[in-house]
Amino acid sequence: VGSVSAVVVRSPTGSERRTAPTEDEVCQPDPAGGIVECEYGWRPALLDEIRRSTRPGLWRFAPLLALPDDVPPHPMPVGNTPLLPAPALAARFHLGQLWVKDESRSPTLSSKDRATAMVLAYAAHRGIGTVTCASSGNAAASLAVLAAAVGIRAVVFVPEEVAEAKLALMLVAGAVVFRVRGGYGAAYALSRTAALEFGWYERNTGVNPLTVEAKKTIAFEIWDDLGGRCPDVVVVSAGDGVTAAALDQGFRDLVACGGASRVPRLIGVQSRGCAPLVEAFHGDGSVKEVEPQTVADGIAVGSPVMGAAAVAAARSSGGTFVAVVDDDLVPMASAVASTTGLLPEPAAAAAFCGLTEARRTGDVGRDEEVVVVLTGSLLKTPFVGRAAAAPDRAGRVHLVDARLDAVAEAMAEAR
Amino acid sequence: VGSVSAVVVRSPTGSERRTAPTEDEVCQPDPAGGIVECEYGWRPALLDEIRRSTRPGLWRFAPLLALPDDVPPHPMPVGNTPLLPAPALAARFHLGQLWVKDESRSPTLSSKDRATAMVLAYAAHRGIGTVTCASSGNAAASLAVLAAAVGIRAVVFVPEEVAEAKLALMLVAGAVVFRVRGGYGAAYALSRTAALEFGWYERNTGVNPLTVEAKKTIAFEIWDDLGGRCPDVVVVSAGDGVTAAALDQGFRDLVACGGASRVPRLIGVQSRGCAPLVEAFHGDGSVKEVEPQTVADGIAVGSPVMGAAAVAAARSSGGTFVAVVDDDLVPMASAVASTTGLLPEPAAAAAFCGLTEARRTGDVGRDEEVVVVLTGSLLKTPFVGRAAAAPDRAGRVHLVDARLDAVAEAMAEAR
Repeated sequence: VGSVSAVVVRSPTGSERRTAPTEDEVCQPDPAGGIVECEYGWRPALLDEIRRSTRPGLWRFAPLLALPDDVPPHPMPVGNTPLLPAPALAARFHLGQLWVKDESRSPTLSSKDRATAMVLAYAAHRGIGTVTCASSGNAAASLAVLAAAVGIRAVVFVPEEVAEAKLALMLVAGAVVFRVRGGYGAAYALSRTAALEFGWYERNTGVNPLTVEAKKTIAFEIWDDLGGRCPDVVVVSAGDGVTAAALDQGFRDLVACGGASRVPRLIGVQSRGCAPLVEAFHGDGSVKEVEPQTVADGIAVGSPVMGAAAVAAARSSGGTFVAVVDDDLVPMASAVASTTGLLPEPAAAAAFCGLTEARRTGDVGRDEEVVVVLTGSLLKTPFVGRAAAAPDRAGRVHLVDARLDAVAEAMAEAR
Repeated sequence: VGSVSAVVVRSPTGSERRTAPTEDEVCQPDPAGGIVECEYGWRPALLDEIRRSTRPGLWRFAPLLALPDDVPPHPMPVGNTPLLPAPALAARFHLGQLWVKDESRSPTLSSKDRATAMVLAYAAHRGIGTVTCASSGNAAASLAVLAAAVGIRAVVFVPEEVAEAKLALMLVAGAVVFRVRGGYGAAYALSRTAALEFGWYERNTGVNPLTVEAKKTIAFEIWDDLGGRCPDVVVVSAGDGVTAAALDQGFRDLVACGGASRVPRLIGVQSRGCAPLVEAFHGDGSVKEVEPQTVADGIAVGSPVMGAAAVAAARSSGGTFVAVVDDDLVPMASAVASTTGLLPEPAAAAAFCGLTEARRTGDVGRDEEVVVVLTGSLLKTPFVGRAAAAPDRAGRVHLVDARLDAVAEAMAEAR
């Protein structure tokens, strides 16, 4: 399977099992709920293979991933999202060089589509009929929509209070939706139990090894778009910790292949109302469950499935974890939108707030090259209305009769 | 300027002015409000230039467009949207080969971004400070967002009853918004007057020649994605008629260059509640203003600026114009979503309803190769909620306690 040389399964009880890289070991969730990790035979030739590849989007990186070579891509283009310069925003942060990796340029407007596409491509290849996951919203919407494209049934488990627009998206795409009382943790546990009981294939983040594999491609693309090098710092919002851990893993894979000399410092960002990874990072490293209290539904994960790995990634890379306040999220989304045209949802705006904080504390210096990963879009949330209602926008909408003097008057006031 | 050999300006009074292709004549709206058309020195060598081009997205087609060569692309990737096979939907239409050109894979989820990107790239190149347009919603949202990315001020004119999510998008991106009493026609007239009065650059569709140039790239991409040939039929929703007219023009340009032997039959689709082009097509060809009465806000245009050209395109290509009923739009959006994962807004769903009608009447045969252009996304409209509430979706959402038996019960009922 790809360049995988061995598979290590870490069980929930802490024990470790090491096996040969068969397709089942690499692509199937561990029945006992363990985390499946792959070891690779890294070598520079893999980077040459990537450079020569003509496969679309994230499929280009298959030689670096634990995916069987004969899996046809999901039909919807996923990956190859833009890395955009943001000079006006850089000035706001007093930074020389700021890039935004715009993961909202994806079928369902979030980075979740990478993992979904890879899981569904494998499921379609194996003739699997039903795929399930638990999700705070984005992953379930992603699974519902991408499953419709390949004729696979999606059964998704979400917290009772899931964002309405995300729920609508799941339903319009024809998924079976369970709104579970007890929050994301309860939805996650029920999804796992149901998958075992009914024989469904799991897209649960962190459990299905392909979800981590897929997210490593964000790091590969950043490296490739920068001409084959790593930035100084990567800032990303963290919920279950999978994106943060996978980014770091991806950069380490590039170093292992000889494609880069060092990994970027990883800065993970959470809301103060749900900051188990911030507490773990600045504490003894152990992740303690919390009760999420945040408007940033995309990162409202009280018991992060790959939390320890994310904290370890921030530590080993020389980065940090930062907490931000909810009240700053919507104003930040507005500020990002009006200086860049990019539209972060509150969970994604947290990363930009985290950069503000890291600049304030000196964790990020003025001359460093920074990439912020924009993980999901404002368009899927009711916050687009709230962001539009920000005080500095109030004077910008004028209800007028179709007369030029009304326009002239309004424009004169705007000055 | 590009391969333009001459410029023809058709004034609102019917007279015609023919000039040399200077940059101002090609890229600036006619001060008298005429339609600017370009004539090209078509030749096969232009197609070779395109094939060799490494420019991103729609910029690849610059040799076929009336755009000065030295205009740097807009920083956001626009164009190169996927042409997706839709086998499950094809079966529903009893069609052998159906493709969907998914124009919702764009920064603001609609085909309007092509015209906006080209207009703004030119404006930035010329140091223009303010760009304006009138819009039923999508074009104004597009202008607001893409203008923010290049630091240009957007002043947009929309009907009083503009869709809330689209208005929110304009505001969050920092545009100045005029909600004009009297509908799209009044907004359009006021935008034009204000542009003249205040010296703003116009992105008004059909008036700024770059808006038509940009939309031709949809045809170029369809041709390219099919391996350098045209499909039998292209189906597209029609509001102001610009997309329909530009598609046909693009295919004709390819034929003129020797890249294809014939153009596809163009089928334009409107809502019965706003069908001036359907009436013109099946009448004497003259377009008479109507009062729009449709939920499909994206095509609610009572007085289409390029209506005559769109009707002529349908006629000369051997196509037709079809009217559909509003009540079918949301169910069709649901059906498309759950069979393809694609998310057409009501105005875009109209095209799929039109294909149903064209299959019923025999205007499209079973063995023909059909491309439907999906012009805008459900994600930007409140209809996503309505589509999710369709009767066949009602039984698909279950509020449960975190217990397996609740899942087993619901799944048993679903059978």
